[in-house]
Amino acid sequence: MSRKDLARSLRLIVVTDRRLVEQDELVAVVRSALDAGAPCVQLRNKGDSPGELLAMGRELRSLTREAGALLIVNDRLDVALALEADGVHVGPGDLPVSAVRSACPGDFVVGRSADDPEVAYRAMRDGADYIGCGTVYPTNTKPDAGSTIGLEGLRRVVEAVEIPVVGIGGITEERAADVVATGAAGIAVVGAVMGAADPAAAVRALLTPFHPRDE
Amino acid sequence: MSRKDLARSLRLIVVTDRRLVEQDELVAVVRSALDAGAPCVQLRNKGDSPGELLAMGRELRSLTREAGALLIVNDRLDVALALEADGVHVGPGDLPVSAVRSACPGDFVVGRSADDPEVAYRAMRDGADYIGCGTVYPTNTKPDAGSTIGLEGLRRVVEAVEIPVVGIGGITEERAADVVATGAAGIAVVGAVMGAADPAAAVRALLTPFHPRDE
Repeated sequence: MSRKDLARSLRLIVVTDRRLVEQDELVAVVRSALDAGAPCVQLRNKGDSPGELLAMGRELRSLTREAGALLIVNDRLDVALALEADGVHVGPGDLPVSAVRSACPGDFVVGRSADDPEVAYRAMRDGADYIGCGTVYPTNTKPDAGSTIGLEGLRRVVEAVEIPVVGIGGITEERAADVVATGAAGIAVVGAVMGAADPAAAVRALLTPFHPRDE
Repeated sequence: MSRKDLARSLRLIVVTDRRLVEQDELVAVVRSALDAGAPCVQLRNKGDSPGELLAMGRELRSLTREAGALLIVNDRLDVALALEADGVHVGPGDLPVSAVRSACPGDFVVGRSADDPEVAYRAMRDGADYIGCGTVYPTNTKPDAGSTIGLEGLRRVVEAVEIPVVGIGGITEERAADVVATGAAGIAVVGAVMGAADPAAAVRALLTPFHPRDE
């Protein structure tokens, strides 16, 4: 995938969370999000066994493939490989980027969480294709995410690397434009789509700040 | 690896358990076990993060390679791939054997836990190279291992498949010969080596029942 295509696919990452919706409903929410134009889904159901991740992942793989969207799997490279997903996202505590890179196909998309410019730079140097950066705003969906870094913290990471940076953490429809204004390539959301009354409308609203760029 | 070489390597699997020994000591225990002739080590530190597994695994990879022993990683195929381990062992809840097979190199050794002849047969059919079968005797090191199947249960699994079966669960030096007499290719132990006052002596004693076969 070209860097431009990747950045385009990373405009909005819809992250799954089974704590926010029922298992059956989750697939329906993702389908609505894809129909509304979400270009990327990240499978992140904390606490699920690899077998459960694989079962859910198969449904998401089929939906994302149909929609021409990326499927990224959180943490488990092996689940990502078994699903023929497009990539994997790792954080501190997960496999290091260099280890992931050595164990996956060359065209695999590898994302790395980093809220610090130096960590982000090292991840890029080790072969990461994009940075997930946050927590930008306070959030309840990832209580272990550490302290918030704000728009300024996000901007510092954007400036430190030459790969796409995706802001994450408490990003809502109202805040999306501010996040994009930092130079971030995209935004990742959990609650803003998983917890939305109308997931399709939420996706359209979250994509709005990107429209001028697309023209 | 030929089936005969694999069976020979599976005579004794030393399974790691960080709950039984300190991190530093674990490496020393494994080194003693390898020096005493243990042909296979399984990295299974429940609760460790992938990053921690990788760090420990690197030490074990270097030791096992030097000793000409196999290194198998429990559950995490991605960690196994990153370590260039020889194989991975999966159980129910982990990735299915067919998914592992599709995501790993052809010469990777894939083990599957099964205490039931039908499950074992299906695993073999899906591409497993060996079966880990137990719990043979009651044990404290894997409280979630389910009910014990005894020597009779083990024998039923041995008879159901044409791949090596390794008995696991509460196997001690005194019980090793009985386990081998069922036709099992080998035994896997956690406490009998990790918790031993003299791990090398324990390994030698556990290997004793195999000596007539080796001649």
